[in-house]
Amino acid sequence: MTGWLDALERLSGSRTKAGLTRQLRPRPADDLVVDLAGNDYLGLSAHPEVVAASAAALTAYGLGATGSRLVRGSTDAHADLESDLADFLGAESALVFSSGYLANLAAVRGATAVCDLIVSDAYNHASLIDGCKISGRRTIVTPHNDPAAVATILDAHPGQPAVVVTESVFSVDGDLAHLPELHAVTSSRGALLLIDDAHALGILGPAGAGGVAAAGLAGKSDVIVTATLSKSLGGAGGVVAGPAPFIRHLIDTGRTFIYDTALPPAVVAGVHRSLALVRDADDRRTVLTTRASETVTRLTAAGFPVDHPAAAVLSVLAPGPEAAVAWAADCRDRGVAVGCFRPPSTPDGTSRLRLTLNAGVPDEAFTRALDVIVECAP
Amino acid sequence: MTGWLDALERLSGSRTKAGLTRQLRPRPADDLVVDLAGNDYLGLSAHPEVVAASAAALTAYGLGATGSRLVRGSTDAHADLESDLADFLGAESALVFSSGYLANLAAVRGATAVCDLIVSDAYNHASLIDGCKISGRRTIVTPHNDPAAVATILDAHPGQPAVVVTESVFSVDGDLAHLPELHAVTSSRGALLLIDDAHALGILGPAGAGGVAAAGLAGKSDVIVTATLSKSLGGAGGVVAGPAPFIRHLIDTGRTFIYDTALPPAVVAGVHRSLALVRDADDRRTVLTTRASETVTRLTAAGFPVDHPAAAVLSVLAPGPEAAVAWAADCRDRGVAVGCFRPPSTPDGTSRLRLTLNAGVPDEAFTRALDVIVECAP
Repeated sequence: MTGWLDALERLSGSRTKAGLTRQLRPRPADDLVVDLAGNDYLGLSAHPEVVAASAAALTAYGLGATGSRLVRGSTDAHADLESDLADFLGAESALVFSSGYLANLAAVRGATAVCDLIVSDAYNHASLIDGCKISGRRTIVTPHNDPAAVATILDAHPGQPAVVVTESVFSVDGDLAHLPELHAVTSSRGALLLIDDAHALGILGPAGAGGVAAAGLAGKSDVIVTATLSKSLGGAGGVVAGPAPFIRHLIDTGRTFIYDTALPPAVVAGVHRSLALVRDADDRRTVLTTRASETVTRLTAAGFPVDHPAAAVLSVLAPGPEAAVAWAADCRDRGVAVGCFRPPSTPDGTSRLRLTLNAGVPDEAFTRALDVIVECAP
Repeated sequence: MTGWLDALERLSGSRTKAGLTRQLRPRPADDLVVDLAGNDYLGLSAHPEVVAASAAALTAYGLGATGSRLVRGSTDAHADLESDLADFLGAESALVFSSGYLANLAAVRGATAVCDLIVSDAYNHASLIDGCKISGRRTIVTPHNDPAAVATILDAHPGQPAVVVTESVFSVDGDLAHLPELHAVTSSRGALLLIDDAHALGILGPAGAGGVAAAGLAGKSDVIVTATLSKSLGGAGGVVAGPAPFIRHLIDTGRTFIYDTALPPAVVAGVHRSLALVRDADDRRTVLTTRASETVTRLTAAGFPVDHPAAAVLSVLAPGPEAAVAWAADCRDRGVAVGCFRPPSTPDGTSRLRLTLNAGVPDEAFTRALDVIVECAP
């Protein structure tokens, strides 16, 4: 069957014509590029204490977890991290997954054990959308960040247990969900609220406890929180937190938990050390706030109006996919990494630069990076 | 909405009655238990060279990859590993994912870009089943390991591009798929063959290149291979290997690749060192073969007939779920970890001990472990 290769080549040709092919650009360990593209918001991924804690666990446990969490993969390191994550998030219980993607698949599917209907924000992350799909439940997509639209949908399905799925800070535009209003809508109608806090964890809320905590929703019995351990926490993996019966349900039935090799103990231990640093990182969070204002001011003055970010993600509209690609490429050639989001990664079909702030970048490098972005603008 | 917690408690009560609840048992770093339950088949996860390579990358890159592969997460370490994995598997190209589960979701969904029909073995892993589900394509499940049944299905759908999905060594029973016969069926009918080689990689085939290589199917243009980096390779993550146009398709469109933080560079580097050791590990593979025979002999003599394993997974039928749990618990109390698989983890509704061989376990400990298993038998 060589026909399938021809068919793949045709699909590839269509993507090339539309300017939608993607390139892997491996970076070396001594990469000198200023990072305004990654998700290491607090600059902790290479923090000496994080590296040391990870190295110690690597020596103690070896590299791999050697099995699924339920067979051989659960170590003391996993249990300790889960206990502290639950405390940090103000939740009764927390469960670590080997990626945020797998955590979201489990959380959404798990919620549908007791919910017949899913109501999902139009800008939700791919992992949440796939969670809806894999659950097999009826899913109604609502306009972006619109609690009134959610209320209308719920009111149209009385007596049908529903789960409303959203992010706290949205991954593409960096805007903040109206969580208090959304929770008022869900709680008054007996619906669950599932919130992906990936981009707010470590940045918003008291001691960086996240967007859910900032909205006063931590520990609510009708709220499920998911997050990654790979952004502010500087490592890898994901977490689901919520009422203990829900976490028990995931341990007993969550396919992406049960049938997956556990996160390596060395990663778990590094993230655990990072969590302690995050709770004490108000100085780093202040740096992010200052830099957000500086970025908005510079880009708006240069003719590219930018909304003040809710956390550390800024979205800058580009004239089109080619212009966005060229802008990002020019920045990279001058030593500044910025994100470039095009369809289908952008929910509204626009093309953008996506800037992420990183408190670990030195001040002078950050200022120079803003100069470069403005000088390379189309 | 407290009703959802009551509903979850009711579901939990049903699982308790059916003996189907699951317990996390965290193990300490200085765990002295003999491991016949994990998937560290070649005993490489704590190999000093693997740990050293991982530690060096941890120092060089920091803990996290800090972004998705397409944004900041691709490092030289990822590119180097992918190049050597492709060479090892005899494939044109290879792509690393942050887990085997995510690799399988991408591979199955990717194949359906050019295939309208999926034909899936009844005993396939949860990640393959979820891959079928998430693709949204029509999926026909065939009786376990039955190439003739696959032929019948394909013949009943002439002109409909199909992908046939199987494992090489099945995860629960440890039996070997009839790959040459299956490939004869698929290739003569113009279907693709997707093979999850997770449990054979490092064990079967020349230099441990896996079950696909052992069957003479490496590098075939109508074969896609997936595998984990967490079993014989002792780390974490997954890989998809096959013709270059398919890998390009996954880079451009694979949601679990694009929208997921990359595997940490330290894990990648450790796995890469492990791969070199695997290729040179004929001595360890001989240990596994010897121990497989020893286990079959001992258990069969004790009244528990066991099939000779295709690789390193043995399945021992227990009289029922409670007996299986008690057997495994007694072994654990005496310092031997064995797996215990019950519904819904077993496709045929039976309950079993699942023993996995580990070449890193010292000889005397392995012999004692067999004694314990026989002495604890129901």
